[in-house]
Amino acid sequence: MRVSEEMHRFLAGLYPICRSITGDGVRRTLAAIRERIPLEIHEVPSGTQVFDWTVPREWNIRDAWIKDPTGRKVVDFQEHNLHVLNYSVPVHEKLPLEELRKRLFTLPDKPDLIPYRTSYYKEAWGFCLRQRTLEELPDGEYEIFIDSTLEDGSLTYGECFLPGESEREILLSTHVCHPSLCNDNLSGIAVMTWLAAEIQKRPRRYSYRFLFIPGTIGSITWLARNEDKVSNVAHGLVAANLGKGGFHYKKSRRGNAEIDRAVLAVLQGSGDVEEFVPFGYDERQYCSPGFNLPVGSLTRTPYGRYPEYHTSADNLDLVAPEALEGSLATYLAVMDVLEGNRRYENLNPKCEPQLGRRGLYRNIGGDDAGRARELALLWTLNFSDGEHSLLDIAERSGMSFAAIRDAADALLEVGLLRERTT
Amino acid sequence: MRVSEEMHRFLAGLYPICRSITGDGVRRTLAAIRERIPLEIHEVPSGTQVFDWTVPREWNIRDAWIKDPTGRKVVDFQEHNLHVLNYSVPVHEKLPLEELRKRLFTLPDKPDLIPYRTSYYKEAWGFCLRQRTLEELPDGEYEIFIDSTLEDGSLTYGECFLPGESEREILLSTHVCHPSLCNDNLSGIAVMTWLAAEIQKRPRRYSYRFLFIPGTIGSITWLARNEDKVSNVAHGLVAANLGKGGFHYKKSRRGNAEIDRAVLAVLQGSGDVEEFVPFGYDERQYCSPGFNLPVGSLTRTPYGRYPEYHTSADNLDLVAPEALEGSLATYLAVMDVLEGNRRYENLNPKCEPQLGRRGLYRNIGGDDAGRARELALLWTLNFSDGEHSLLDIAERSGMSFAAIRDAADALLEVGLLRERTT
Amino acid sequence: MRVSEEMHRFLAGLYPICRSITGDGVRRTLAAIRERIPLEIHEVPSGTQVFDWTVPREWNIRDAWIKDPTGRKVVDFQEHNLHVLNYSVPVHEKLPLEELRKRLFTLPDKPDLIPYRTSYYKEAWGFCLRQRTLEELPDGEYEIFIDSTLEDGSLTYGECFLPGESEREILLSTHVCHPSLCNDNLSGIAVMTWLAAEIQKRPRRYSYRFLFIPGTIGSITWLARNEDKVSNVAHGLVAANLGKGGFHYKKSRRGNAEIDRAVLAVLQGSGDVEEFVPFGYDERQYCSPGFNLPVGSLTRTPYGRYPEYHTSADNLDLVAPEALEGSLATYLAVMDVLEGNRRYENLNPKCEPQLGRRGLYRNIGGDDAGRARELALLWTLNFSDGEHSLLDIAERSGMSFAAIRDAADALLEVGLLRERTT
Repeated sequence: MRVSEEMHRFLAGLYPICRSITGDGVRRTLAAIRERIPLEIHEVPSGTQVFDWTVPREWNIRDAWIKDPTGRKVVDFQEHNLHVLNYSVPVHEKLPLEELRKRLFTLPDKPDLIPYRTSYYKEAWGFCLRQRTLEELPDGEYEIFIDSTLEDGSLTYGECFLPGESEREILLSTHVCHPSLCNDNLSGIAVMTWLAAEIQKRPRRYSYRFLFIPGTIGSITWLARNEDKVSNVAHGLVAANLGKGGFHYKKSRRGNAEIDRAVLAVLQGSGDVEEFVPFGYDERQYCSPGFNLPVGSLTRTPYGRYPEYHTSADNLDLVAPEALEGSLATYLAVMDVLEGNRRYENLNPKCEPQLGRRGLYRNIGGDDAGRARELALLWTLNFSDGEHSLLDIAERSGMSFAAIRDAADALLEVGLLRERTT
Repeated sequence: MRVSEEMHRFLAGLYPICRSITGDGVRRTLAAIRERIPLEIHEVPSGTQVFDWTVPREWNIRDAWIKDPTGRKVVDFQEHNLHVLNYSVPVHEKLPLEELRKRLFTLPDKPDLIPYRTSYYKEAWGFCLRQRTLEELPDGEYEIFIDSTLEDGSLTYGECFLPGESEREILLSTHVCHPSLCNDNLSGIAVMTWLAAEIQKRPRRYSYRFLFIPGTIGSITWLARNEDKVSNVAHGLVAANLGKGGFHYKKSRRGNAEIDRAVLAVLQGSGDVEEFVPFGYDERQYCSPGFNLPVGSLTRTPYGRYPEYHTSADNLDLVAPEALEGSLATYLAVMDVLEGNRRYENLNPKCEPQLGRRGLYRNIGGDDAGRARELALLWTLNFSDGEHSLLDIAERSGMSFAAIRDAADALLEVGLLRERTT
Repeated sequence: MRVSEEMHRFLAGLYPICRSITGDGVRRTLAAIRERIPLEIHEVPSGTQVFDWTVPREWNIRDAWIKDPTGRKVVDFQEHNLHVLNYSVPVHEKLPLEELRKRLFTLPDKPDLIPYRTSYYKEAWGFCLRQRTLEELPDGEYEIFIDSTLEDGSLTYGECFLPGESEREILLSTHVCHPSLCNDNLSGIAVMTWLAAEIQKRPRRYSYRFLFIPGTIGSITWLARNEDKVSNVAHGLVAANLGKGGFHYKKSRRGNAEIDRAVLAVLQGSGDVEEFVPFGYDERQYCSPGFNLPVGSLTRTPYGRYPEYHTSADNLDLVAPEALEGSLATYLAVMDVLEGNRRYENLNPKCEPQLGRRGLYRNIGGDDAGRARELALLWTLNFSDGEHSLLDIAERSGMSFAAIRDAADALLEVGLLRERTT
């Protein structure tokens, strides 16, 4: 089976699960991930103080429905888990339609879609439904039932740590709290799972830390429990919405961190780029001023800005298998830049070395690929002055990082470069 | 009466006065301003050395005319005070038209307008008239009469100082030397008068100094007599041409002073902006290299670049009452930025604080204004790291300074910010 | 005779000579230059080590041809010296067309032009010819003859040093190794010869060094033999392709050196400008990281990017006499900027000095040229604060360097400026 199809199938397996920021939905999701990569599962008890926040009680749900005056189920959690306001407290009562209406959420301008709504930090209950369904409800007495529990328990997250040569690490974070929504964010979960599996096979200069966490409270919890590790974070990305559309990169708060430049070098002008804004996904927390980590967010469709966002239309059809595989490839290319970006010193800095007698320069004429190889050699030699990294040289030359990295390897082999360490 | 009309009426009262860089025209003008704001009147004797310049003799004029060979007054100062070359020495003689022509100034391409001309620093006399009048003059002997005096006296200027919490001051300077010209610069005089009256009513972090001075020699004189005060000038603006058209901002010589950024934050892209050039109004002197004060020039029509500039068409009709009031509002908004621009420290810098439990975050859905308020809170929290001022945050977020200032106030109230002093 | 024609005639005299990186062609060319300017001729023995390179054996050629099976000369060095692969070893043999083909170079998409090809550092022989000629060659046995020598001898270059007040020098380098090609680079040779002759007549703040050298190996040789002089190089330009088209400037590796800004100030937006790239002419060597000299390249048609480049179409018709003279004028203007660019201090820094009483300001009205002169005075006064050079002021004002230089001279004369030396 092709990688793209394998990823999509993985995602299809996770789609039906009703996830939230706590509860068994997250546990089942992490269990599926752990079948593919080493994953440490953390349970953080309800009530734990994490900076300004408190880990909430754990929410689980078995069933929920609305029956109309004739006893017919008009809204049914079993049909779609978006139907229940996420984190609804248990309830079983009868009430007239006029009163029920205050608990119903629809999208009047998208009458066939069910919205996704939550109420994590204020006790409430409610239902989400299609506007079209709402309009057809007859007056009368309705029976409503939500078979949920909201009790002391724990917040669950998964962590995959892959040690490398150095303690300095690359942080990759994705949220696992959304119920049956595919692009946001089963796509991110799939891409991070495959990325971790691939990185695990490779030699690693950096250590890698993959976090599969509930949004907001998850990153806050991780940061609160790992303040001592934060100084090791050399680079980071928040992954989400990777199943559809062109790439979108939101820079880290620092704006010109190596991660920002690495992503731009990989995209080479082909994606949208925006400066850091203090809203979006978990980069909000990683980039809060007390941490200010070099963490950007590489997505395809950006946060909140696609029509199916947070609706039942964000389903399995929305996510293209090829987009998943392309996202994986792009993340891998960014990791290649970070791994390969070093600083060298030209050992023959006065005038050009004679490349011809080292077999690195054609004598007469030649193909375009050969010419590009030679230009990459010249750029790498000229700017390997100890000041410029290979990424600097790729940026300055407009050539791909891979071409410059290849040139550096060829020059290292003939002894014209030496790594500059400090 | 509406403010706009009140301002225009004030300006109408000043219009007939024949002002110059010295003399009773300036004194009468300052007397009218003093009816509205506290104003100290300074008299600086002729002959006083002010840096490279000398305060000139005082000029006053009562009448001036040209009679044609038939004895008819063809040019009459009583009809329009632009008719006389400003600073003309007294003269009464007869001379043929051919000789008189050398003393006559017209605008051949605007044949119905009287030009405004001066000869402050070289003794001369002359008349300004419509090209159409000139063309109709018959040959023959003309009688000319200028009943002026150019004698030792003094240069007069007005100063309104409003002390604030700090010795650091905002300098606001406008020229009062132009005769019957409305936009240039009765508009500036009116806006500065109303601005001073309004600022006088408010609490002031800064002290304010309003200068009503003759152009060039006035600012040179003030600077020469107040070198010890110059280091207190934290921000400044030269006001002129505020009765018509869109806004125009000419930056201070420093180019990125707080005043420059404050004006840009208020204009938010709606006006023309130009870099400092060493010609224009009194910013030439404030921004001379020996002072290099952070003084820009906020006008509507810029210096010299509108068709009615320095002609009889710069009259009461040219100046719109609404433009005057709008100019006042814009100057006040700039002062609000300067007064309100401080640096804060987020007291919960690690991850976001939970705004919901402090009543600062809506729980579900919401109006756009509410959303904008939340974004302003997030921007202000994220960038209140002690490095960024509120103006920095407004610039970076693209939100209005007022929105960011409001957010800071809300956050101060719940104890999430602390002012960073130093 | 007009200068433009004189230059073109000089170039016509050099056109027939078969030059290479060594040999009598270069010697004859330098002899012609020495008739016009003082020129020291250097001979560097074959085998001399120059950094990573070795001075090659000397190449000379007397004749070369190909005879077809009927004995007819189908390719003849006497007709055009591009016909022989430059640096071909001697050969005299018979071989069938199929084998000969491997030694023949054409331009299939420019079938009427002879290409220019070299093989300096790998022993080879070959011929260059028109594609059209190649297509008409009958099968059979061909006789080929190259009467060349490749023997120990020397590499020859010329150096014209014009001492100035200071040891700091301006390096001007042009390549003399191309055979019958006019724009590349007899044009550069002519412009540098005339420039040296003109500079020789003038007072010089800087010393000037003109190098007439074979490309690549020549600059490497000069640098290797003159490492002690390199620190004196304050500014430099590599001259080539100066006979045709608009100007093209390639910046020095430093990117914002004074030479870069001087050239831009002279071009004032009228030419193409590109950042440094590590390929092109001898700036590759001067800007290698071990030297990183402030050397740009001012050409008209840029390196490699015009259709006649390195073909027989780069002939006498391609080069316009007016373009040669214009190139000379532009180089002289750049030298004027470098010579005239100094830093001054306004001796009346507080407010403007009164220019009127010094005869530098008109009293009433005036022509546009007069106004421009006044603006230049104001710019020069305002920014002569010891921080800004005249070139800074020209850049900031958008006025020509010459206008600012004239203003500075006028202000020096009336004692308002003093040179700032440090």
